[in-house]
Amino acid sequence: MTDLQPKQDRSRATRQRLLETTIRCLATHGWEASTVGFIAAEAGISRGAVQHHYRTREALILGALEFMFDERAALLDALPEPTGTGLDRVHTVVAGLVETIGGELFRAALQVWTVAAADPELRAAVLPLERHFARGVHDRAVRLLRVDDADPEIRALIQATLDLARGLALADVLTDDSRRRARVVRAWSTQLADAFEGISPDSQDT
Amino acid sequence: MTDLQPKQDRSRATRQRLLETTIRCLATHGWEASTVGFIAAEAGISRGAVQHHYRTREALILGALEFMFDERAALLDALPEPTGTGLDRVHTVVAGLVETIGGELFRAALQVWTVAAADPELRAAVLPLERHFARGVHDRAVRLLRVDDADPEIRALIQATLDLARGLALADVLTDDSRRRARVVRAWSTQLADAFEGISPDSQDT
Repeated sequence: MTDLQPKQDRSRATRQRLLETTIRCLATHGWEASTVGFIAAEAGISRGAVQHHYRTREALILGALEFMFDERAALLDALPEPTGTGLDRVHTVVAGLVETIGGELFRAALQVWTVAAADPELRAAVLPLERHFARGVHDRAVRLLRVDDADPEIRALIQATLDLARGLALADVLTDDSRRRARVVRAWSTQLADAFEGISPDSQDT
Repeated sequence: MTDLQPKQDRSRATRQRLLETTIRCLATHGWEASTVGFIAAEAGISRGAVQHHYRTREALILGALEFMFDERAALLDALPEPTGTGLDRVHTVVAGLVETIGGELFRAALQVWTVAAADPELRAAVLPLERHFARGVHDRAVRLLRVDDADPEIRALIQATLDLARGLALADVLTDDSRRRARVVRAWSTQLADAFEGISPDSQDT
């Protein structure tokens, strides 16, 4: 038993390095270049060891996406409760959501979505992951914003905010869009704060 | 001269069919499948004739994107002036913008952006097209909404609307998202109309 534990730890560490490398390879080099051989070499792991964890390339890529989606959700859960009320709070939360949805994980997922768009089998495998992640982010947004999304208007505005975040993430794929993004996030947050105020004036002070 | 004109017409018609087929192939079958041979076969044109118009696969794909971007801009220009004021007008325009930015052209462009994300040479070729199209759509949005985007807040809100449209287009790639999209478009239009009203109360009645 004393020998088994370190071996399990090593296996877990290897697996995590493999999944992180898979995301980085997809985001940086794209779908076509991200073969099992290439990812294994980049991670410094033998092909055999990779196949011990994931039998196919598709299983490896989907495993990496799921792992990173879960990590992002955990990061959102670990965020300190935003201070302030009204616009300050809304702006902090929206900026955090945009940050969480964009970046390297988005660029990796984009490679998978784009191939899945023309591949029904991959699409069927990706959709449940995608839905699970989207639902998790939506629920965390509701909690952080302290709003009640049983109100259909608030629900639609939270969804709009997450759609905006994906649109901003897409705009950042071809160029560094961070300065423009900051202005758009600020303008959007102002409208969102006004809307929450108008729909349920007390929701943010409870 | 009498013989030349029909020949030019035929050549132009062939070219247009080729470009439309290229967009459809990219949107439906993806980047990897959309080789010159496959596109030529789908369009019912010989490989030689394709190469007479476009010497490389990349030139063909970029030519098709540019052509379709220009067609979309022309469609926006041809839209009847939206009637009504306030929310009605804003909703009509936002729904039209979301329609124009999404759909088959978006799915085709997504294939190109995604490959360009990991290919600096393709990225350099795509960016000017992309910027030209984005600027054209922005200017048309300003005109249709009858707002003054010299105001930085209005400018950021128009940009946010176009980012939202791209996010919605992305959400539609893996599933039919049209019902949810209609609710999101309505909710955002309400906020946008309120914002325009607040920033420059007379702008929409002139």
